[in-house]
Amino acid sequence: MTKFRHYEPDTYAQQHIRITPTTLADGREFFYLDDEPEYVSGKKTRELHDPRPLADRFAPHADADGNVVPYAAPQMRRDPLTGDWIPMATARMNRPITAGLKKTASGNPLAARIPGSAYQDGEVPDTDYDVVVFENRFPSMVQVPGVDNTTSFVDGNHLWQTRPAAGRCEVICFDPNESGLPADLPVERLRTVVEAWAFRTVELSHLEGIEQIFPFENHGQEIGVSLAHPHGQVYCYPYMPAKMEAELTHTEEYFEQTGGNLLRDLMAAEIDAGKRVVMRNHSWVAYVPAAARWPLEVHVAPLRDVLTLDELNDQERWDLAQMYSTLLKRGNAFFDTGDGKGMDLPYISAWHQAPVRDPRRAHYRLNLQFFSFRRAANKIKYLAGSESGMAAWVSDTTPELIAQRFLELGPVDID
Amino acid sequence: MTKFRHYEPDTYAQQHIRITPTTLADGREFFYLDDEPEYVSGKKTRELHDPRPLADRFAPHADADGNVVPYAAPQMRRDPLTGDWIPMATARMNRPITAGLKKTASGNPLAARIPGSAYQDGEVPDTDYDVVVFENRFPSMVQVPGVDNTTSFVDGNHLWQTRPAAGRCEVICFDPNESGLPADLPVERLRTVVEAWAFRTVELSHLEGIEQIFPFENHGQEIGVSLAHPHGQVYCYPYMPAKMEAELTHTEEYFEQTGGNLLRDLMAAEIDAGKRVVMRNHSWVAYVPAAARWPLEVHVAPLRDVLTLDELNDQERWDLAQMYSTLLKRGNAFFDTGDGKGMDLPYISAWHQAPVRDPRRAHYRLNLQFFSFRRAANKIKYLAGSESGMAAWVSDTTPELIAQRFLELGPVDID
Repeated sequence: MTKFRHYEPDTYAQQHIRITPTTLADGREFFYLDDEPEYVSGKKTRELHDPRPLADRFAPHADADGNVVPYAAPQMRRDPLTGDWIPMATARMNRPITAGLKKTASGNPLAARIPGSAYQDGEVPDTDYDVVVFENRFPSMVQVPGVDNTTSFVDGNHLWQTRPAAGRCEVICFDPNESGLPADLPVERLRTVVEAWAFRTVELSHLEGIEQIFPFENHGQEIGVSLAHPHGQVYCYPYMPAKMEAELTHTEEYFEQTGGNLLRDLMAAEIDAGKRVVMRNHSWVAYVPAAARWPLEVHVAPLRDVLTLDELNDQERWDLAQMYSTLLKRGNAFFDTGDGKGMDLPYISAWHQAPVRDPRRAHYRLNLQFFSFRRAANKIKYLAGSESGMAAWVSDTTPELIAQRFLELGPVDID
Repeated sequence: MTKFRHYEPDTYAQQHIRITPTTLADGREFFYLDDEPEYVSGKKTRELHDPRPLADRFAPHADADGNVVPYAAPQMRRDPLTGDWIPMATARMNRPITAGLKKTASGNPLAARIPGSAYQDGEVPDTDYDVVVFENRFPSMVQVPGVDNTTSFVDGNHLWQTRPAAGRCEVICFDPNESGLPADLPVERLRTVVEAWAFRTVELSHLEGIEQIFPFENHGQEIGVSLAHPHGQVYCYPYMPAKMEAELTHTEEYFEQTGGNLLRDLMAAEIDAGKRVVMRNHSWVAYVPAAARWPLEVHVAPLRDVLTLDELNDQERWDLAQMYSTLLKRGNAFFDTGDGKGMDLPYISAWHQAPVRDPRRAHYRLNLQFFSFRRAANKIKYLAGSESGMAAWVSDTTPELIAQRFLELGPVDID
């Protein structure tokens, strides 16, 4: 099996998946993660050559007026009023939008290449795949070789710090079937997705200057997903995102006051209270948190103390794949559509794991925050004045009502 | 002129508007703010009697099963992981939705009553009005007489604090014309809206336990506005909203380090830099902040040091109405619709003013944060995984590009 700089899959993982790295025509990193026996055994191999005539992604290029200009590394600026860093990603304006359109292999850059073709916007060199991971072609954050990463000032004013948005954005395709839903994928394929999360977490944590590695999934046109193909993303932030900063402040304060781990104690309290626990298997528990803010919200926590996704053992990875599959299926059944068929629930699935280097990481604990904007089969919760202007959430329901509905959809014990 | 507990309009305001209080049938407070000379002079008066047969809003009522149950005061819970309080407003699930529908006076609760009718869901007793303010019928936060406001614990666990969401939600109707746009209102009418913001700020600041008074406007179906009628809202939070907390942390830290006022210095820096200043009149300046996070974002600041809306003097109130009018008009023209006609821009207009009692209020400064989710005539910015899951904003544009577009739409000097 290929050696990675930092990733050392255990024996068990090696028996179940195979990771094959390559480089796309414009220089981006690309990985096949295969769970099919013939690829795992090495009997078959993946196509490594990207036939597209792409220039190096950091090469000078023609601008809108046809003039050749140097590659402009994305920048970020610090908002002095909130302390938030804001990457400013003008290059993303040109990214493809196909959600809601009937897609063909020639129109979906995440599809496997059609045999014999060299479709210029297809990202996958092979004509088939299981799971693939690659660097985003239109990243809001990227590390550009040779770019000085020091802070300077907008208009020379020290109130306004700016520096390159030297992070990283990756895409994870969950399956080659472009019209499939993550909820319908077999647990074996979701296990490979879990492996992708773990693999990227450990590899990316060695990039210079990364503070937080954030695997997530945006699902559904209702939240602006530009490609319907089942996929997730990994953002590597070169700063601490505001929500993680708030969580670290509170987990650290709790540790100082009690010596305990807030996330562990919250999980234990939910298990103890019982009524908001909606799923449980050998390694994981899922609950609607007592102070849920979204109309549908479930947190998933490992029973064992784990800081980051790569620390999960084999059993935990399989159990997570099983629980994620059940969560997605029950999420699709959650809202009453009148015909009993359920719906394709729009959701955001957000991994919160210990930060890369912040010393407060020791008192954090891995957790998945899964939530939906949908508040009824035909209604969306919008983030309007209170949420967007004041970061003050108002819930239209209660955690107990959310949990009660989940409990109608299947047993808590899913082992 | 009617005397209010705390509001003392100056002579100038008395010459230009008249405030007439009344009480709606279910006990909610209601105010007419008139700018028409015959009402200001007292020649004509407003209808004070709400003819609807509504029960007291806090009386016991029938639940979904027809059983009579006591009024349930809305509760809020503290999220231990972030420190955020989350009001849980199940009553709001039943609020009316008419946006996008062809509305009639009988279907729009914000419309003036049809002469001779006693439409049961109409909120305005009179058959006409200029501006009205009243308590929201479906509030996410409300102070219920006799309800004990102390903290208790969800499931008896001290990790989960809960207490009544003892705040207040008010609605401000900007104009009786239900299909008008705020951008099209005469400056005189917007001046009355400014007076409503000031009036409510001072009155509501005397309610017990209120930390922040937040006048805001949600405009556009795209952000889920349930009533298209031109209106705004005032939320009174019985806790410090997360965004204000972040801003106060930074303004206070800046004061401790420099002795200066961060918001004043940011305004001065923008005026100094010049290129992001998009409007200016005698009392106000509007700029795209150097670290703008939204695809369209403008901050409006008074040139004089002012903490809260009620501190604005007459000149500043008129000048604000004029600038707000220009801002809305240019906002509607901002995106190229191809036909040169502009669009009805969806926007959020959020007043950030000094908190009611937090001692850090002295180093804050009044500012309006105006922004839109729209990033092109046919595209919306969605708050997906990064924004909703990590509170990490990524901008698809730059502040300079936003400012450049504004500068194409009219002169900076609007006096």
